[in-house]
Amino acid sequence: MEWFYVPALAEVSQGVGIGSEVDLPEAEARHCLTVLRHREGDVLHLVDGCGGRGEARLVQADKRQVRAVITAFERDAPDPAVAIHLAIAPVKNPARMEWFLEKATEIGVSCITPVWTQRGERRHGSSDRWQRVLVAAMKQSGRSWLPELREPIKFSDLMRSATEPCRLIAHCGPGERRSVLQAAQPGQPALLLVGPEGDFSPDEVALAESAGFVPVHLGASRLRTETAGVVAVHLLNLAGAVGA
Amino acid sequence: MEWFYVPALAEVSQGVGIGSEVDLPEAEARHCLTVLRHREGDVLHLVDGCGGRGEARLVQADKRQVRAVITAFERDAPDPAVAIHLAIAPVKNPARMEWFLEKATEIGVSCITPVWTQRGERRHGSSDRWQRVLVAAMKQSGRSWLPELREPIKFSDLMRSATEPCRLIAHCGPGERRSVLQAAQPGQPALLLVGPEGDFSPDEVALAESAGFVPVHLGASRLRTETAGVVAVHLLNLAGAVGA
Repeated sequence: MEWFYVPALAEVSQGVGIGSEVDLPEAEARHCLTVLRHREGDVLHLVDGCGGRGEARLVQADKRQVRAVITAFERDAPDPAVAIHLAIAPVKNPARMEWFLEKATEIGVSCITPVWTQRGERRHGSSDRWQRVLVAAMKQSGRSWLPELREPIKFSDLMRSATEPCRLIAHCGPGERRSVLQAAQPGQPALLLVGPEGDFSPDEVALAESAGFVPVHLGASRLRTETAGVVAVHLLNLAGAVGA
Repeated sequence: MEWFYVPALAEVSQGVGIGSEVDLPEAEARHCLTVLRHREGDVLHLVDGCGGRGEARLVQADKRQVRAVITAFERDAPDPAVAIHLAIAPVKNPARMEWFLEKATEIGVSCITPVWTQRGERRHGSSDRWQRVLVAAMKQSGRSWLPELREPIKFSDLMRSATEPCRLIAHCGPGERRSVLQAAQPGQPALLLVGPEGDFSPDEVALAESAGFVPVHLGASRLRTETAGVVAVHLLNLAGAVGA
């Protein structure tokens, strides 16, 4: 099934909802008309990115405007059920970073924050482009929750601002590290940090530990950063499923 | 650390080993000379793809031949410790298929078989290219075991030839399905089937069940085929780690 991402659906649904009209955003409107060749009267399936899912009938379908009247609306439970926040050192190769964003969305993630580390990249990919990857992955996997993509943040600032009750840092250095499945707290929102190719520095790991982050490993394999990110998201989903 | 893939190391190591000479294969030799700019006397780190890992000193480094004398050799335990065989319907997009091969190798897989299904692709990517992806991922993740890439096989032939004691089929259709972590048998080699975008047909699922395959799911999310493959490999590694 083809889904259209229409953030305005969220506002419409707060009122009477059924019978209201929404305009498709430009990119979705273009896709609707020129690729899928929908016409007035066709039924569309919409998601609003924050748990809303609706059906709508096209009432205007021309180059100026693609407008639909909402005929059904329902609200999905939060997905993932327990919030998963992944903070990850950006990967140099843009395709690898976008791949991570796509796969994390498919598997289930609530929030992604690029984090600037001592040994990692500080260059930032295009937020617009990253956002498009998230939207495409959300629609492709039939979800109605769009992961929140936060602004890049310095490691030290993240240490100060993190509020999740379950805070984990994945690293490959010395010291005791638990498995994510052991360290995740069932039913508790979790923030997990994944470092750059050269790993977090010992200073960063120490700072994180003093900020209440539990050191974890992601298994025995040596993983690229983007693979570590995907494995981490999968493990937190498993931990949530076990705890739910 | 930079690793060179030298299959001949396996043969050399069966004899006296230390002190023997090996030639680097053409692609590795070129990389050694023109990219890494190694010279005679330099120490190289070699893997043979079947658990052998060695050190060698360059004794000849010119365009005709790159030859090294083995100075140390050790054998790694099988990796993954319990054999993981993934049979997967090939993905149409070559980049996505190669991405799957890379990530499965990073996380840990013993054998990959492309399988032709009723609803999937029958086109076959370049085996040579796929093999290069596996080799690059093995070296990048510091492994000495190269996953075996089998020839594509028809679904019905795979049903007849599968010998793994633990046989699983992941599908999204009706009927009871267990989680992979529940269905995997600790310490037992496992074969897991992942279907095409349109899923296995009901006939294929029935055939698999009659051939002793246990139906499993890969979690609540709707995953692309290549993501399902990576998630499946990760789950089997987790099951093996729990069972080990």
